[in-house]
Amino acid sequence: MTSAPSEAGLLSPGWTGSPAASATSDGAYLRALLDAEAALTRAQEAQGLAPSGAGAAVTAAASGEFDLRSVAGRARSGGNPVIPLVADLTEAVGGEYGPYVHRGATSQDIMDTATMLVAVRTLDLLAADLDRVERALAGLAAEHRDTPMPGRTLTQHAVPTTFGLKAAGWRALTLDARDRVTAVRDSLPAQLGGAAGTLAAFSAYGATRAESARGDATGLPAAYARELGLRAPLLPWHTLRTPVADLAGCLAFTAGALGKIAVDVLTLARTEIAEVAEGSGGGSSAMPHKANPVRATLIAGAARRAPQLAAVLYGSLAAEDERPAGAWHAEWEPLRELLRLAGGAARDAAELTEGLRVRPQAMHANLGLTHGLIVSERLSAELSAVLGRARAKALLTELAPRTYAEGRSLGELLAGEPDLKDVDLGDLTDPARYTGSAGTLTDRALERR
Amino acid sequence: MTSAPSEAGLLSPGWTGSPAASATSDGAYLRALLDAEAALTRAQEAQGLAPSGAGAAVTAAASGEFDLRSVAGRARSGGNPVIPLVADLTEAVGGEYGPYVHRGATSQDIMDTATMLVAVRTLDLLAADLDRVERALAGLAAEHRDTPMPGRTLTQHAVPTTFGLKAAGWRALTLDARDRVTAVRDSLPAQLGGAAGTLAAFSAYGATRAESARGDATGLPAAYARELGLRAPLLPWHTLRTPVADLAGCLAFTAGALGKIAVDVLTLARTEIAEVAEGSGGGSSAMPHKANPVRATLIAGAARRAPQLAAVLYGSLAAEDERPAGAWHAEWEPLRELLRLAGGAARDAAELTEGLRVRPQAMHANLGLTHGLIVSERLSAELSAVLGRARAKALLTELAPRTYAEGRSLGELLAGEPDLKDVDLGDLTDPARYTGSAGTLTDRALERR
Amino acid sequence: MTSAPSEAGLLSPGWTGSPAASATSDGAYLRALLDAEAALTRAQEAQGLAPSGAGAAVTAAASGEFDLRSVAGRARSGGNPVIPLVADLTEAVGGEYGPYVHRGATSQDIMDTATMLVAVRTLDLLAADLDRVERALAGLAAEHRDTPMPGRTLTQHAVPTTFGLKAAGWRALTLDARDRVTAVRDSLPAQLGGAAGTLAAFSAYGATRAESARGDATGLPAAYARELGLRAPLLPWHTLRTPVADLAGCLAFTAGALGKIAVDVLTLARTEIAEVAEGSGGGSSAMPHKANPVRATLIAGAARRAPQLAAVLYGSLAAEDERPAGAWHAEWEPLRELLRLAGGAARDAAELTEGLRVRPQAMHANLGLTHGLIVSERLSAELSAVLGRARAKALLTELAPRTYAEGRSLGELLAGEPDLKDVDLGDLTDPARYTGSAGTLTDRALERR
Amino acid sequence: MTSAPSEAGLLSPGWTGSPAASATSDGAYLRALLDAEAALTRAQEAQGLAPSGAGAAVTAAASGEFDLRSVAGRARSGGNPVIPLVADLTEAVGGEYGPYVHRGATSQDIMDTATMLVAVRTLDLLAADLDRVERALAGLAAEHRDTPMPGRTLTQHAVPTTFGLKAAGWRALTLDARDRVTAVRDSLPAQLGGAAGTLAAFSAYGATRAESARGDATGLPAAYARELGLRAPLLPWHTLRTPVADLAGCLAFTAGALGKIAVDVLTLARTEIAEVAEGSGGGSSAMPHKANPVRATLIAGAARRAPQLAAVLYGSLAAEDERPAGAWHAEWEPLRELLRLAGGAARDAAELTEGLRVRPQAMHANLGLTHGLIVSERLSAELSAVLGRARAKALLTELAPRTYAEGRSLGELLAGEPDLKDVDLGDLTDPARYTGSAGTLTDRALERR
Repeated sequence: MTSAPSEAGLLSPGWTGSPAASATSDGAYLRALLDAEAALTRAQEAQGLAPSGAGAAVTAAASGEFDLRSVAGRARSGGNPVIPLVADLTEAVGGEYGPYVHRGATSQDIMDTATMLVAVRTLDLLAADLDRVERALAGLAAEHRDTPMPGRTLTQHAVPTTFGLKAAGWRALTLDARDRVTAVRDSLPAQLGGAAGTLAAFSAYGATRAESARGDATGLPAAYARELGLRAPLLPWHTLRTPVADLAGCLAFTAGALGKIAVDVLTLARTEIAEVAEGSGGGSSAMPHKANPVRATLIAGAARRAPQLAAVLYGSLAAEDERPAGAWHAEWEPLRELLRLAGGAARDAAELTEGLRVRPQAMHANLGLTHGLIVSERLSAELSAVLGRARAKALLTELAPRTYAEGRSLGELLAGEPDLKDVDLGDLTDPARYTGSAGTLTDRALERR
Repeated sequence: MTSAPSEAGLLSPGWTGSPAASATSDGAYLRALLDAEAALTRAQEAQGLAPSGAGAAVTAAASGEFDLRSVAGRARSGGNPVIPLVADLTEAVGGEYGPYVHRGATSQDIMDTATMLVAVRTLDLLAADLDRVERALAGLAAEHRDTPMPGRTLTQHAVPTTFGLKAAGWRALTLDARDRVTAVRDSLPAQLGGAAGTLAAFSAYGATRAESARGDATGLPAAYARELGLRAPLLPWHTLRTPVADLAGCLAFTAGALGKIAVDVLTLARTEIAEVAEGSGGGSSAMPHKANPVRATLIAGAARRAPQLAAVLYGSLAAEDERPAGAWHAEWEPLRELLRLAGGAARDAAELTEGLRVRPQAMHANLGLTHGLIVSERLSAELSAVLGRARAKALLTELAPRTYAEGRSLGELLAGEPDLKDVDLGDLTDPARYTGSAGTLTDRALERR
Repeated sequence: MTSAPSEAGLLSPGWTGSPAASATSDGAYLRALLDAEAALTRAQEAQGLAPSGAGAAVTAAASGEFDLRSVAGRARSGGNPVIPLVADLTEAVGGEYGPYVHRGATSQDIMDTATMLVAVRTLDLLAADLDRVERALAGLAAEHRDTPMPGRTLTQHAVPTTFGLKAAGWRALTLDARDRVTAVRDSLPAQLGGAAGTLAAFSAYGATRAESARGDATGLPAAYARELGLRAPLLPWHTLRTPVADLAGCLAFTAGALGKIAVDVLTLARTEIAEVAEGSGGGSSAMPHKANPVRATLIAGAARRAPQLAAVLYGSLAAEDERPAGAWHAEWEPLRELLRLAGGAARDAAELTEGLRVRPQAMHANLGLTHGLIVSERLSAELSAVLGRARAKALLTELAPRTYAEGRSLGELLAGEPDLKDVDLGDLTDPARYTGSAGTLTDRALERR
Repeated sequence: MTSAPSEAGLLSPGWTGSPAASATSDGAYLRALLDAEAALTRAQEAQGLAPSGAGAAVTAAASGEFDLRSVAGRARSGGNPVIPLVADLTEAVGGEYGPYVHRGATSQDIMDTATMLVAVRTLDLLAADLDRVERALAGLAAEHRDTPMPGRTLTQHAVPTTFGLKAAGWRALTLDARDRVTAVRDSLPAQLGGAAGTLAAFSAYGATRAESARGDATGLPAAYARELGLRAPLLPWHTLRTPVADLAGCLAFTAGALGKIAVDVLTLARTEIAEVAEGSGGGSSAMPHKANPVRATLIAGAARRAPQLAAVLYGSLAAEDERPAGAWHAEWEPLRELLRLAGGAARDAAELTEGLRVRPQAMHANLGLTHGLIVSERLSAELSAVLGRARAKALLTELAPRTYAEGRSLGELLAGEPDLKDVDLGDLTDPARYTGSAGTLTDRALERR
């Protein structure tokens, strides 16, 4: 015996309670399905394919309450929730206008349109959170334009960089995500094609009203799209899934872009590195010294999952026939989950970046960990000009291990070299003075809006 | 402003209402988390690490009601639901024994253990449905041991086969799935390690009770596992994720194995082929002739999604440190979704195979579609013995296009060849007599249990 | 003991021998790496960061032959092929200008830039093949604008459609792919940042030439990009992987879009359906009647693989630090494989669509398979106007099973109804006259360029 | 115009030159295909289905040289390389026995069997490298059984652990991988079914030799398997892909298990942590202080790719018909790539673990970074026994921030508390004495073989 599941997002701290969570709930989908049905009848009325009053009647009925759990349960029989919902809505509309509910449409017309409505609504919320992230990062980049820190490659200190440049890079990715989200959001079309995408039934039903209307359903999709604020489709796209693939791409990109911020924060927040900390790290009652980077952790978790969800959606492009058996059904949950993961990650990223504590002193201390070797690239270049390339290289190769062995800095060891007495070793070995074009690059990146 | 989502499985007809759905609901996870906490205190009491009565007190409190939505909401702060649940449970236990709730454990000990409990419970339900599938297929294979049908390769008729052999193959895959599910189910361990997997806190707390207990927490994991009917872990596996990877593998396998049945049914149920039909196809009010293969469609949809969910779990094997920041968090929802998809697919497969309508007449008719060319492989072989290889080949190459052009069967055309007057062309060109070892193979496959 | 592998694309009939194969070979990558190195020295010379003549010297040396196998073998030590190649190129350039090879750059600057060169070159070839596909489909859509065929949903006949509309839909997807490919191709940037993306070493080396040049390497990336015909990067993008993610998206889209064509062809080419055939199907010596849809098969295979390769690339967005340990290395082969799969699929799709044989007679015959029920949707609509909704429904529900049982068409059975004597049943039950707006939609879709 | 690609593994430092690379080269596949063909003829001879001498003749011819590039190029026509290879081999065998090449078989019989041969040969090499890893880790675990180090969770120091326990965990995963690899290796079957899996043609050809042999091809698959050292299949598995799915699982597991070692090494090798270093890190000419963890980087890269390759293979379980159009073709390259990635990762892991430099002093120093707070869990437990739970908690909450603010250790601050004068604070605050059951767990884990 099985009872109804009770769901509250227990396993989903990354998106539970987020704007995206509400915008993608079962209730939100049910609302969008009803919005799509009502818009369809209104559009048919506007096109002369349904009697005056039908649109208002269906719209009124659709604004009522429907039994979500019952609809979900009965979805099993035909394989999608539109079939039982149409039955319930038709009953709610009642006698005169009931026949105009869903007339001429196929389940996928309504399901796809509702999914686009949910996507548009969620992407708007997501974009707002990306804007918060962008602003916070712009502030950090400007503030730390000249804050030097170790540049790390393959986990090792390489040469110095600045925290400003790092934040500017995070912001650039965030803007890339926002641009992609906005472009896709504005491209999402309504879906309308009828049973096999020919719009035939709309004409057939219309033909029963006025002979002149016969065959004239081609204006219906645009009228329908206008009712909903979606783009008019060039063709029915039951198995031409560009909108879904585009959503997959922009959402996987967003999760990954925020994931880059997260993995950097996770690294920089390590106990040994401690160059940043989350504003309010998750505590541990048993270990009071711990301040877990929880926001970054949840974003990183989302970034691990999003690509595979997008892969399912890209895979569903290869959908056979006029409407497919499986490829379409496989889209619903992954697309919702992508909206949630990206939306939740954006919320977490907003909190993370707005609250991030940056520790220039730790960065400064870490710059000294390699005893000055972090500027060895510069020394290779500049000492070559003084000593010649071969001698410069030999000298550095000799001194490098001595810094560790003797616990002395490279600058100190170089100071003992007679040939370098005219060289400003203080400048040459100061990591803060070897940040290259970091400042200029940061400025340039901040000009982008 | 965001309100709590309301969830009922609206987008999940594949598993809504299934045994796996109940066994993996938020409520079921909450129950498993509480079971894990209670078992931990009982095990500590049994090992002398908690006072007499603590186990019973925590067990009693854990059997009460907890506010799922509140726990889920508060999970966000620390990134997992165990932290708020421990607070609620501790309060419910109250003064004397409250301190023994979760004592020495880390959130992941409880979360992983609860996940294993949920997995065991769901796999048992899944195995039962696989057994139904297996029995139904054994029946079909036996019944249709000698029912000839076209064998199809790269979408084209190749040579005849039998429906019995096809059903026996489906059954073999189902048994492979069941064997893997059972083996993994029996291997799933409890999780217990404390903060960093050393069991140190259990000893530390124990040490405050009896000096002799110091350092003696190593027996605790096995005692804990016994309380829960799980395997005792050799090591804490916070970042040694073999059990999760094994679940990923067996569940992706199960979804894929059932997916094979589904894609075959989808092909054979096509209007033009019509060799099988689902017992109760999903209807269409507007198109009364349609009997959609809904069960197969939903299974095929699950089979498209499961591999990517498994990929996330395999990816989480590379989890850094003693407990990771993201890799673990990324596992929860995909593992649950895999349990649901495989469980739902098994339910659908049981209904599908138990109700499948097989149409030997359609198979017979389809065997004739190529005018006898479906046995050309046999004719190549056997006519070579009579005519020599070169002449046999030349003859068949000449006659093959004529069958289509003249609408006559290959047997008819061959009958005009004088050199073949002693050959039993009726036998040689009968597709039903060219099923090779299909019957023997079917028998052999059915011997497997 | 291991010997060098010998590779010829044995397992890759989908792309072996294609334009994309040559453009992405190890040899092509080696060439692109050398192009990148030469351009870098030329750009440095142009910016006053290298002596006059250095650019020409390195360019001349880079145009020579290098030992691919040796470079590949030595790549293992440092983990990428740039390190050994720089050594070889420096040696080839020799004494005076040798030091100006790769000066100031990091391996990833060259590797990423070379990858972008390879991508641009391959995308150009891919776009040309997509154009072939588009043209072939435009021809098919125009030719078959009014060729009726069964519309199929969930594998079942639903209502009629036209082959023209189907081809127009395939073309729309192809144009979507081409638009995405072109947009991404034009956006691909050169990579230049030096060890940690600050351009510091370029300035440092530059500083040894002229004090005034110090810190003035910010113009170098644009100069470098100009040399190569790539876009100038706003920032070094060692761990800001937008270009790679964009490639992932457009290539997975392309493979999927072509995959849609392929799965439709595979369905329509089935022995029982036979509405299309490949121009030159793969034969079988033992089974002369077989004409395997090999091109569609190989495209469908590519469409199954591309999404997962894209997932790896989206996953690599979350790359830690200034240059990452693993995320970057994981990109190389999947990106190349995506270029190959999409490129190979485009070649196969060009051959497939240019040679596709369309069989209107088979489509016509198949339209009759449901005894007229394929227009039951229309009859529901139009008979309701005559008989009232309830009677119309009751009548169709009664007659539908009789068509199959008695082997008579729906039109024939309806003709016996007295109340329908004034209805033009010949028109109403003719599938060819129930294609709705298919023609108009096809025309509209063909206007898109 | 396109020329033949020239391949040398330029983009694949992770596996180029490895044992797995040779064992999976195009040349190795060609060899395995020839082995399969020769074995088939020998088995037919042994079963009385081919004349005496045919097996030896084909075996002799198959041991010759074949033109790999030509075969690969001609594979495109029929979609797989077996078709052209059979033509070449038949020609090589020549007149009398030529007809017995491939007789009765389908391309997939040979291709699948060859793939299993390649897999067995590669898994043997992989297992040998896993054994090296296991031995190296056993040594490290034993040597460092009592070497304390910080346990890290969510990137933060939690409580102490030991390097021995960490190495023992790595070894446990390695053994899990080896066990799975060995089990799958021993289960891999030969493939034999003929055109549609009924073995019909073998009987048909056999029937031309002796009437008594008619229908008696069912023993052939087992004879064939014996010739090759593979398992006899219960059924032809052209679309029952358990062996491929099992390979996917064990190889993704192996890559992930080694990936765990790699991500830990990458973390511990960070400049700021420096608790381990690779034996011979990849150097950087410009930055002499860098010792990049290249082996770990390449393994981590492999671990990012393997799950998605496995996902393709799991997805191919849903293969329609007797032999599928796409699902099978999509398997070849991903399976080979998985063999290479896992094999290459095993080689790298062997070198990594055998050469790993462990730095107990760095571990000791890092244990002190939190001023003693790393043992706060223990203090919570043990001070509660002395001071009562409330006072103990209040005291630690007060002292924790003071350790950082005053730069004093927790032990020092506690020493000022009068009520603790009888407590051995030296012991209580020594991280090395709070490693719990780490030693016992290590011992226990090392008992596993």
